[in-house]
Amino acid sequence: MTEFNLIERLRQWVSMPAPGVVTGIGDDAAVLTVEPGFELLASSDWLIGEVHFFITDPPALVGYKALAVNLSDMAAMGAIPRWALLNISAPAQELKWIEEVAAGVVELAEQEGVVLVGGDTSVGQHAVSVTMLGLVEQGRALLRSGAKPGDLVVVSGKTGEAAYALEAIRKGDEPPSEALHRLQQPRPRIALGRALVGKASACIDISDGLLADLGHIATASSCGATVKLNKLPTSSLLETLPAQRRWEMQLGGGDDYELCFTVPQDRMAELTHLSAQLNLELTVIGVMDEEPGVKCIDPAGRRWEPRRRGWEHFE
Amino acid sequence: MTEFNLIERLRQWVSMPAPGVVTGIGDDAAVLTVEPGFELLASSDWLIGEVHFFITDPPALVGYKALAVNLSDMAAMGAIPRWALLNISAPAQELKWIEEVAAGVVELAEQEGVVLVGGDTSVGQHAVSVTMLGLVEQGRALLRSGAKPGDLVVVSGKTGEAAYALEAIRKGDEPPSEALHRLQQPRPRIALGRALVGKASACIDISDGLLADLGHIATASSCGATVKLNKLPTSSLLETLPAQRRWEMQLGGGDDYELCFTVPQDRMAELTHLSAQLNLELTVIGVMDEEPGVKCIDPAGRRWEPRRRGWEHFE
Repeated sequence: MTEFNLIERLRQWVSMPAPGVVTGIGDDAAVLTVEPGFELLASSDWLIGEVHFFITDPPALVGYKALAVNLSDMAAMGAIPRWALLNISAPAQELKWIEEVAAGVVELAEQEGVVLVGGDTSVGQHAVSVTMLGLVEQGRALLRSGAKPGDLVVVSGKTGEAAYALEAIRKGDEPPSEALHRLQQPRPRIALGRALVGKASACIDISDGLLADLGHIATASSCGATVKLNKLPTSSLLETLPAQRRWEMQLGGGDDYELCFTVPQDRMAELTHLSAQLNLELTVIGVMDEEPGVKCIDPAGRRWEPRRRGWEHFE
Repeated sequence: MTEFNLIERLRQWVSMPAPGVVTGIGDDAAVLTVEPGFELLASSDWLIGEVHFFITDPPALVGYKALAVNLSDMAAMGAIPRWALLNISAPAQELKWIEEVAAGVVELAEQEGVVLVGGDTSVGQHAVSVTMLGLVEQGRALLRSGAKPGDLVVVSGKTGEAAYALEAIRKGDEPPSEALHRLQQPRPRIALGRALVGKASACIDISDGLLADLGHIATASSCGATVKLNKLPTSSLLETLPAQRRWEMQLGGGDDYELCFTVPQDRMAELTHLSAQLNLELTVIGVMDEEPGVKCIDPAGRRWEPRRRGWEHFE
């Protein structure tokens, strides 16, 4: 198989016609239609072998995750994900790896109603870069900057399991399958993001770690936040861990792809309703306040400082 | 410097407010406004160290080229380039390299009125991935698929100098500065692309090599093409080479980022005018025909077959 054959195969995989796609894969650029009254959302993330995934991971799962982390950015903005561009590189002999990664991307794309409209392949290390395009009603995107002191801090689902799996793998242990699933196949919270439009005052997805990402909301909103450690939603897997170790994973582990958002206190009833409707746990873990920074309060009411607040690749 | 500092610095470099940008760098996604009556164009290409550039190249020139090759895709579609997303990776100790690449991207972006609105950085090999977004009037994008038998095949500028420079570098020689400039700093033909909207029947940019790219037009348009070798525009640098070697570079070298397009014969006068207006050579090198494939005719009127028709990374 050659590179051109692969592009041809990808073109066949992608079901056309698709809404908004005038010209998809196969020209110099995709031609797309943005409906009147909507704004365009664009995000780009990449996954690199031995940094974000192991090159021994099943390639279809690498592709799944590369799209999922970008869908998670769309969820965090309250957007409808629409189109993706996919760049993949692999060593010269591994066109098969590229094909399997692409298959993983296309599978999740179909599930989420996303159309692959372009991209590039190259010889290089094992790496995948996805650019995601979506739409949101004009002026309604969920930004990081709208939180106000007094707003409640809410997190969806549970955090820390991806970090738990990663720690096991790094030690050479086999991680429990539910934790591995959370690491390799995070479920982007698209429906939640859409439902939060007009409700949440600020929103972010938890890729760097809960504290680091809540810190981004606090900074962008020119305020601070306080998190109560005894409020953190805890999976049965993490429940048995010593508290310190558990908190580190839940607050600093990263790779969770849940949403962290803020809501005015008087909207709490709507959240309860939403949680039931989506069958998704939504937990109030703290409150925004005036004091800059994110503070953690342990069950005894004392300040607690984690060893690490999130991921930094370059230190 | 940390990764977060770098993103903050990038945010400061990018002049805001910018037309169409509601929210740029610094949230989960950029929020962009597409004007009514326009379609969105999206393309993505990447440059990988030791594949598309040498890691000893000046990083600002790597950044320049990463954006330039994507601008070239916009030119080939007749689009107005508007927004870019930039992903850069480098080994852990080389945040400085990332910063200098980004500076090269931002410099060309400013020259071309493009705004950097998002992206990602990571530890990895030296690599740069750019996604380019642009606009074109509804239904007016220059596709590969509109050529008809009888249409003239036109190429802008001159091809082959980038291949000449690359060959010299691979031999360990110092390439002539004008050839090196063509390789490292190709000038995307944005103004030409815009001027061809409504005139050209098909258009592509020459990144894979003239014959391969003209072949893409022929295939997409369900016809063929014949190129006359004595019509190829030849730079003074390549004029002294033996004909066979010169043709190989001009037709199969790739990395030229000129435009190859087709026009109905009765529009020739407009092209002459356009060439003068843009101060850019536009040369008719052949004609589209019914016979599938791209045929080359040498000065003696015989068929000529190149050893290589273009770039294939995976063979």
